[in-house]
Amino acid sequence: MSIKVGINGYGTIGKRVADAVAKQKDMKLVGVTAHSYSFNTEVAKQKGYKIFTTDGDEDFKLNGINPDGNLKNLLEQVDIIVDATPRKIGKENIEKFYKQKKVKAIVQGGEKHEAIGTSFVAQCNYNEALNKEYARVVSCNTTGLCRTLNALNKFDITSVHATMIRRGADPWDIYHGPINAIVPVLEMPSHHGPDVQSVLPKCQIFTTALSVPSTLMHLHSVIADVRKKVNVDDVIGVLNNTTRVRVVRNAEHLRSTAEIMEFARDLGRLRGDMPEICVWKEAIGTVSNGYNKLLYMQAVHQESDVIPENVDCIRAMMGFKDSDKSIKMTNETFGIK
Amino acid sequence: MSIKVGINGYGTIGKRVADAVAKQKDMKLVGVTAHSYSFNTEVAKQKGYKIFTTDGDEDFKLNGINPDGNLKNLLEQVDIIVDATPRKIGKENIEKFYKQKKVKAIVQGGEKHEAIGTSFVAQCNYNEALNKEYARVVSCNTTGLCRTLNALNKFDITSVHATMIRRGADPWDIYHGPINAIVPVLEMPSHHGPDVQSVLPKCQIFTTALSVPSTLMHLHSVIADVRKKVNVDDVIGVLNNTTRVRVVRNAEHLRSTAEIMEFARDLGRLRGDMPEICVWKEAIGTVSNGYNKLLYMQAVHQESDVIPENVDCIRAMMGFKDSDKSIKMTNETFGIK
Repeated sequence: MSIKVGINGYGTIGKRVADAVAKQKDMKLVGVTAHSYSFNTEVAKQKGYKIFTTDGDEDFKLNGINPDGNLKNLLEQVDIIVDATPRKIGKENIEKFYKQKKVKAIVQGGEKHEAIGTSFVAQCNYNEALNKEYARVVSCNTTGLCRTLNALNKFDITSVHATMIRRGADPWDIYHGPINAIVPVLEMPSHHGPDVQSVLPKCQIFTTALSVPSTLMHLHSVIADVRKKVNVDDVIGVLNNTTRVRVVRNAEHLRSTAEIMEFARDLGRLRGDMPEICVWKEAIGTVSNGYNKLLYMQAVHQESDVIPENVDCIRAMMGFKDSDKSIKMTNETFGIK
Repeated sequence: MSIKVGINGYGTIGKRVADAVAKQKDMKLVGVTAHSYSFNTEVAKQKGYKIFTTDGDEDFKLNGINPDGNLKNLLEQVDIIVDATPRKIGKENIEKFYKQKKVKAIVQGGEKHEAIGTSFVAQCNYNEALNKEYARVVSCNTTGLCRTLNALNKFDITSVHATMIRRGADPWDIYHGPINAIVPVLEMPSHHGPDVQSVLPKCQIFTTALSVPSTLMHLHSVIADVRKKVNVDDVIGVLNNTTRVRVVRNAEHLRSTAEIMEFARDLGRLRGDMPEICVWKEAIGTVSNGYNKLLYMQAVHQESDVIPENVDCIRAMMGFKDSDKSIKMTNETFGIK
């Protein structure tokens, strides 16, 4: 029996989760919601997805789309809803709609951990979401930090300092900047540290963040104090054996976020996405002269790294117990090795 | 008696040091060198600076400038030369020209510390350059780190992690990128840490760096472990009492590197320069729950922060012993409080 999944909100995350759910053999995409007509819903129509409305049908009908109902109609047909609405709306939707219809719901990283109780990164804490009514897939940055820090904790991390160099806007976004400035996030330490702890509670991490004029990916500069002696080859070995992490090399001319994105396009990934966290081999370093430090830099594709997490979170919440199998099934549909 | 100063190399740094020297009451700008005609030498001519050539006179004569001689002629007329030529050329020039002519020389941060022996940031180690034949004014990034870390060591810093988010190119530079990527420096830790130690040998600092699509300023994200208890107001107090450091505030809409640059232009600074290191008040943070951490972010104007350092370094090398007085004299000519 397929898991019946609905998607509420059809933007950057929602449309990707819809495509990912549609590819899972054990899931059925019942439909997606949209508040207004756009190229996004036009593509959804071409793909044959059912479209449910949140703000009335008129705009859709004017543009040749006959909606299949509204959000409440969608909720009546699904086991679980993936809420990909803007920040803070997810929590409101739980109270206003999902509880009433007794539908399980996944919200995104814009919601607060405390409001949901369970924060999720599949390879870190899959079991915590087992059979839960509500869970939160953490943000792209938090997902990226959790994937690598969880794996590298093999070297017994005592404390982490990370700086998040954030892309200023998504590639399609004409509203945000900066065009030619560096903009610090005026929050020290930043919220990313506590957010990592919502998944990895024992991780002592302190973060800062800033925005730059780039649209492609975030970049994280991470310095960790570790107890165990560590060398670069060991780190590469661990990361090569970590799912959803990719070690990229300057030697193959993957020198920057731009070249990584071009690589994803060349691989034929849908939308040119790169859901794996990319760690530069040549940007892994260690210090061992009296100190025991591990340094690395990683690129995070803000549009896509959380998509496989949403898929696995659906399975966990629906009671599928084998996390390794879920991750493997999901990875195969993304072309992740 | 004025100190007779020559400038070898008339690019981003050279032209600014020339203007700064010309403003000092105890110095005389004898002249500058250039390898070819450009708008830079055209402005030098308009300012009445003598122009000496390094690669022949022809290009200048074709463009209406009659050079005043060559580099050797300039060296015969000066007490000290400020070498602002590209990386590695400064050290070669010492061997090829300055030693022979027995002229003192300052080189820039592109040269290696080991090759020169003395690295200089006025407020940190003025006395080390006293009467020296050769000294090195460290790079813009190292100058920025040294100014604030030297002051904040009041809180007994045990270890520093800093990430340098570097502007991809200077505002006039049409040759370099990136336009839309984040480019890690594949050197972990980066050379900036050891370079800080060439001025502050006891500072335990580990750094990483990357380039972004911005031309205005560098930004440093700094996390320091400190022994003494520290709160944000104490940090602001120390920085407000530190010369060549400016605490800027979100409250005055100095939210980003772009707004700081606009502020410098509004202040009427020559070329819109901001030689002070700008620390955002709202990006100063502390942690004290079991840890004792000090976090801050600062903006560094890569084109200008080393200019007052060159001026003070001239005085130190010429035997002027009062560092505070030199810094004050220099600051007044820049409009630095």
